[in-house]
Amino acid sequence: MIYLDNAATTYPKPQSVLRAVSQNMQGANPGRGGHSLAIRAAENVYKCRVKAAKLLGVKNAGNVIFTSGCTMSINMVIKGLLKKGDHVVVSDMEHNAVMRPLEAMSQYGIKYTVASVCENDEETISNFRDALNEHTRLVICTQISNVWGIRLPVERITAMCHEYNIPVMVDAAQSAGIVNINMMNSKFDYLCVPAHKGLYGVMGSGLLVVRDPKNLQPIIHGGTGSDSLLLTQPEYLPDKFESGTPNYIGITALSAGIDFINSIGEEKIHRHEIELLSMLYDNLSRNKKIKLYTPRPNEKSGGVLSFNVKDKTSEETAAYLNSRGIAVRAGLHCSPLAHKHFGTENIGAVRIAPSYFTTYSDIYTLSRVLSAGSAR
Amino acid sequence: MIYLDNAATTYPKPQSVLRAVSQNMQGANPGRGGHSLAIRAAENVYKCRVKAAKLLGVKNAGNVIFTSGCTMSINMVIKGLLKKGDHVVVSDMEHNAVMRPLEAMSQYGIKYTVASVCENDEETISNFRDALNEHTRLVICTQISNVWGIRLPVERITAMCHEYNIPVMVDAAQSAGIVNINMMNSKFDYLCVPAHKGLYGVMGSGLLVVRDPKNLQPIIHGGTGSDSLLLTQPEYLPDKFESGTPNYIGITALSAGIDFINSIGEEKIHRHEIELLSMLYDNLSRNKKIKLYTPRPNEKSGGVLSFNVKDKTSEETAAYLNSRGIAVRAGLHCSPLAHKHFGTENIGAVRIAPSYFTTYSDIYTLSRVLSAGSAR
Repeated sequence: MIYLDNAATTYPKPQSVLRAVSQNMQGANPGRGGHSLAIRAAENVYKCRVKAAKLLGVKNAGNVIFTSGCTMSINMVIKGLLKKGDHVVVSDMEHNAVMRPLEAMSQYGIKYTVASVCENDEETISNFRDALNEHTRLVICTQISNVWGIRLPVERITAMCHEYNIPVMVDAAQSAGIVNINMMNSKFDYLCVPAHKGLYGVMGSGLLVVRDPKNLQPIIHGGTGSDSLLLTQPEYLPDKFESGTPNYIGITALSAGIDFINSIGEEKIHRHEIELLSMLYDNLSRNKKIKLYTPRPNEKSGGVLSFNVKDKTSEETAAYLNSRGIAVRAGLHCSPLAHKHFGTENIGAVRIAPSYFTTYSDIYTLSRVLSAGSAR
Repeated sequence: MIYLDNAATTYPKPQSVLRAVSQNMQGANPGRGGHSLAIRAAENVYKCRVKAAKLLGVKNAGNVIFTSGCTMSINMVIKGLLKKGDHVVVSDMEHNAVMRPLEAMSQYGIKYTVASVCENDEETISNFRDALNEHTRLVICTQISNVWGIRLPVERITAMCHEYNIPVMVDAAQSAGIVNINMMNSKFDYLCVPAHKGLYGVMGSGLLVVRDPKNLQPIIHGGTGSDSLLLTQPEYLPDKFESGTPNYIGITALSAGIDFINSIGEEKIHRHEIELLSMLYDNLSRNKKIKLYTPRPNEKSGGVLSFNVKDKTSEETAAYLNSRGIAVRAGLHCSPLAHKHFGTENIGAVRIAPSYFTTYSDIYTLSRVLSAGSAR
């Protein structure tokens, strides 16, 4: 099986991550006991927090919150921050992890405006600026489209929003691990990160990085193993946002995943994926039956490329590829706005998402199989 | 190390659970792709859902929701159900996973009354009945106290509440796996279950069983891999309550954990734990320096026994036991109300929680070490 669905979850995982899972699938409950096993677990959790802080350029490790995934992190910001009457600006590349919470908040009088992403960054930033109004209390922007691999100028959007004292939440679902993120430089207010994609951790775990927790209320409350006499949630970090037993396997796998990223370097991983996708793009461009939507991948793109075979739905193409041992993801990728952007909301698109483990041979095989298939 | 902190998380896990983790630590994203790997993952998730439904006597597997843990399940009920002006009744044995969400809801005008648990079930039920009022919209009751091992008459409390059409949420944090739960017979409206305790799964996973989803709104929204064009959350189960990539390792571990429970039987596991705790109780009763709070464990008790050594804080005793290679949990166990019930809110208690893997020899060693320590 050639696996090219790494935007959904990376596969395979590095051996070091698998080893971490094996070594930590038994463990005591971290932070919930004074005995040696619980202390060792708490130490492992803390080590991962420090590593994640370093990777993401976060000053205090406590500002790195472990969550059950990027969707959870996004919900924590949208629902922990917004109040009746607030307005939000989002890009037209956002995932349903952003859009569905926002739609749900409309019952509490939250409104939102969609700003269109353009090929020219100036125009994109201008669209975001135009969408702001006096009630805008949050701007949400994915760093890389999970459908088109388009990279958004989130640093510049953040700088622009900060002129108006509007906080920015960045969805790093497709960027963490291939784009260097530095919270101190970029000044993103909230960063949402999955552990199981570009960071090579496992499913069911993620991060929320909070620059300033002051205005953010927790949406989940419960035991923290701290201040147990208090019926109110502790105000300090990370306990304010970490209730209940954490996903210990997920955290220790992430720890190994971050080590893996550091051992290779985000830039090298990114370059590898872009080289593969550029090669694919060139092959697909020569095939008249293939419809491409975005420019040739370059150093600014993310590790995702989507296309269609003319006169075929994306599902048909994906099923054909699957029958030839190639795993890709068709359909809408939970991002209807991004598909509307290119008019593919009815047929979807075939998404190719390599990882660091994808080889030139994999992409060559894909091109060959597509070529044979589209000629039928 | 003799591990007696199984009420926090079971350790060790059965070999079959470890094998399941090893076999599934690589997997595609279930329900998010049509390729063979994603379909296999989705099948494994479905198999676990069916097993959990069977174990818990749930008619439709879709009513079993995978969550990131029991705390999350509890939050989903409290925050997805209650509206301004609603009143809740809770027992005085509830964990902060219940109390902190309720306290947080007080800002939205939710009030609650605490009903005291008595040795006599009639009195307990009467206390619950007395606490109801015309605004009561939910009754919350743990099935087994995580501090004292006291088993509450949740089935009878549910029957009483249903006389008034009031739904009941049962916290099965300490009961699932040692008490037979049958949702069809007991008619609990909501059941919250951790995977990593009595079901021998891993941390960061749990279940919410919903008898009738009609009145329950999701508190987390996002991609479900289904109906992606819809910006609103799908209304059908389980998608309504399962947004974002699931904890695949956690689910497949739980699947093996349920097989383990079924291979032995809840009754046998329960009997084993009670026999160990009864033996411990008898040993502790003979030691004049030990303060016990609850009656001798019997077939009605849960697998938890707490005590103190006179003139010592619980932390001092736990540290002493840890220095002798015995892991127990001291302090308040995130359950301040339960400690106030017996007046231990200042010193906490030393909690002994065996699992099916705990041996008579472990308990004998504990008794001996305690005897030596308290004689110092």
